[in-house]
Amino acid sequence: MNTPDKNNRFWRLARHPVADDFAAAIEFDQAPMPAPAEGQVLIRNEYLSLDAGTRMWMTARTDSYQPPIPLGSPVPGLILGQVIASRDPAFKAGDWVRAFGSWSDYSCVTPALSALQTVDASVSDIRQHLGVLGMNAWTAYVGITDVAKTRPGETVLVSAAAGATGMLAAQVAKLMGCTVVGLAGSAVKCQFLKEQLGLDAALNYKSPDFGAQLASIAGGIDVYFDNVGGEILDLVLPNMAHYGRIAVCGLLATYAAGEAGVGPKRFDQVLMRRLTISGFFSPDFMQRGPEINRIMRNWFENGRIKMHFDVTQGLENVLPAYRKLFTGGNIGKVLVALKR
Amino acid sequence: MNTPDKNNRFWRLARHPVADDFAAAIEFDQAPMPAPAEGQVLIRNEYLSLDAGTRMWMTARTDSYQPPIPLGSPVPGLILGQVIASRDPAFKAGDWVRAFGSWSDYSCVTPALSALQTVDASVSDIRQHLGVLGMNAWTAYVGITDVAKTRPGETVLVSAAAGATGMLAAQVAKLMGCTVVGLAGSAVKCQFLKEQLGLDAALNYKSPDFGAQLASIAGGIDVYFDNVGGEILDLVLPNMAHYGRIAVCGLLATYAAGEAGVGPKRFDQVLMRRLTISGFFSPDFMQRGPEINRIMRNWFENGRIKMHFDVTQGLENVLPAYRKLFTGGNIGKVLVALKR
Repeated sequence: MNTPDKNNRFWRLARHPVADDFAAAIEFDQAPMPAPAEGQVLIRNEYLSLDAGTRMWMTARTDSYQPPIPLGSPVPGLILGQVIASRDPAFKAGDWVRAFGSWSDYSCVTPALSALQTVDASVSDIRQHLGVLGMNAWTAYVGITDVAKTRPGETVLVSAAAGATGMLAAQVAKLMGCTVVGLAGSAVKCQFLKEQLGLDAALNYKSPDFGAQLASIAGGIDVYFDNVGGEILDLVLPNMAHYGRIAVCGLLATYAAGEAGVGPKRFDQVLMRRLTISGFFSPDFMQRGPEINRIMRNWFENGRIKMHFDVTQGLENVLPAYRKLFTGGNIGKVLVALKR
Repeated sequence: MNTPDKNNRFWRLARHPVADDFAAAIEFDQAPMPAPAEGQVLIRNEYLSLDAGTRMWMTARTDSYQPPIPLGSPVPGLILGQVIASRDPAFKAGDWVRAFGSWSDYSCVTPALSALQTVDASVSDIRQHLGVLGMNAWTAYVGITDVAKTRPGETVLVSAAAGATGMLAAQVAKLMGCTVVGLAGSAVKCQFLKEQLGLDAALNYKSPDFGAQLASIAGGIDVYFDNVGGEILDLVLPNMAHYGRIAVCGLLATYAAGEAGVGPKRFDQVLMRRLTISGFFSPDFMQRGPEINRIMRNWFENGRIKMHFDVTQGLENVLPAYRKLFTGGNIGKVLVALKR
């Protein structure tokens, strides 16, 4: 256990981002090392989980599923780290933990307010607690099973399939005997999806004939696992099979638009094809983490499911890492490693 | 049993309607009286059920839930009438039947292709086979129960609540202990909904403060039973309760737009509020008719559910009757009675 630093470096939300101009929105700063109050826990962050949804809490909108981040505050985010001081008897120095902390060297949290959980340090790669054993995995598993009500053998389409949640959703569907088609924005990613993850097909949504490729999916799309929304959703809707289901865990393409967003132009297909569209997000089923992790860990340790990380070294490099989520620059889960 | 006429008058789809200009789209004509072929049944139509969905089959679009009506053909529609000649042993002259026939004096149908069913003539008002015992009722019942998964005591909003399906959906929700708010386009209809149907509230969507009225629904809207879509849906979305459900059995507001339709601008709320939107329509659960009719008939005969009809006399008057569905001119089920 290293001695904590004297100062805690952190990223602060200085102003609301305009479109995807995060550089103007966040500022790197430092403050004196926090001391945990009674009931609090001080964590040395080892990995930051960068998630597209944070982009929404950076705006001023109040109708999202979380309140906006107050201007001037540290940017909150899921972190994986080790307890260095605890004033809660349930946690002790040295424990590996996951929590909603912040984009900082250290997070000082109140367990009940930050979903603080001890994680099993015996896993072969500790980062998997932000991977196959983390919230992206719960989103993937619950989305494919409970939300989309996927039945074995159906045809499942997954957007952002080279992203953290998408790659897990696609593999869960494969493991239950489905025909799985992944969407990604480059030939390299499509190759990755087919060769590394074993998907049945991968379509580049930037291809000029993308619409025709969707239309050629035999029998139509039974399930669309979507975290993008926008124009791709418009193209998918008329290619859904009757009684198809769309599980929406993100609307990346429309976050910048805020309340002025445009809806799916082909919304009429919801009626014509008797579709069901359901929005969901993982904090709603945190309590199912242990149940899902048991399944995911078994698959992972038997080599049946893979996770890919895109790791950027250094807290000071958060900005280029975060941008990847909006430019398609990553394959897999975007992490920042805080080696010191 | 009257002797059949020599000729069969009917409405023909002459050209596809432009927007809601049905007058230019359909033409009144006549043809020699049809003679049933082996296996067919000849029905004297007594009542035509006018339904908004027909407007869609009048267009050329091929991506709807039914194929377009071929130009030059009689306009198809649900009818209630009496068999006057049968070459199918399951039906005999004098039987009251319901079928997908056409806007005509007589319908000559093949039972298996037209959902021909004998109906119980002992009901106190035979028209109820196009009312509380008809397809609108099945849509209402299945929409509130199976599709929207309404739970007793929830807050339910119903669009076009003075229309045939809406008024039944609203009453089903009332009967299961829900707080029910109906939407309609006039003060007279709102009064009807409160005084005649006993709804908890009725809102006029043409009121300048309609949005504020929606926002004041305590606790938000758990279930929205919608057959309209369009701008009202946009206003409803941000006022849904978290985990709310929207059952869509029609998109009246957008039928004219066809494939160029605009989607709900506030689609982001599907994610933000974790909503589920499901499209459905009653031909999908025809087989549940007897089960639902048992329930509806019991409620009806015990005075617990009401049905209102808007009846136009004379086949020649189909056009003004049909227009009512798109101008809000009706309260209740729009029928054409074929008194001869």
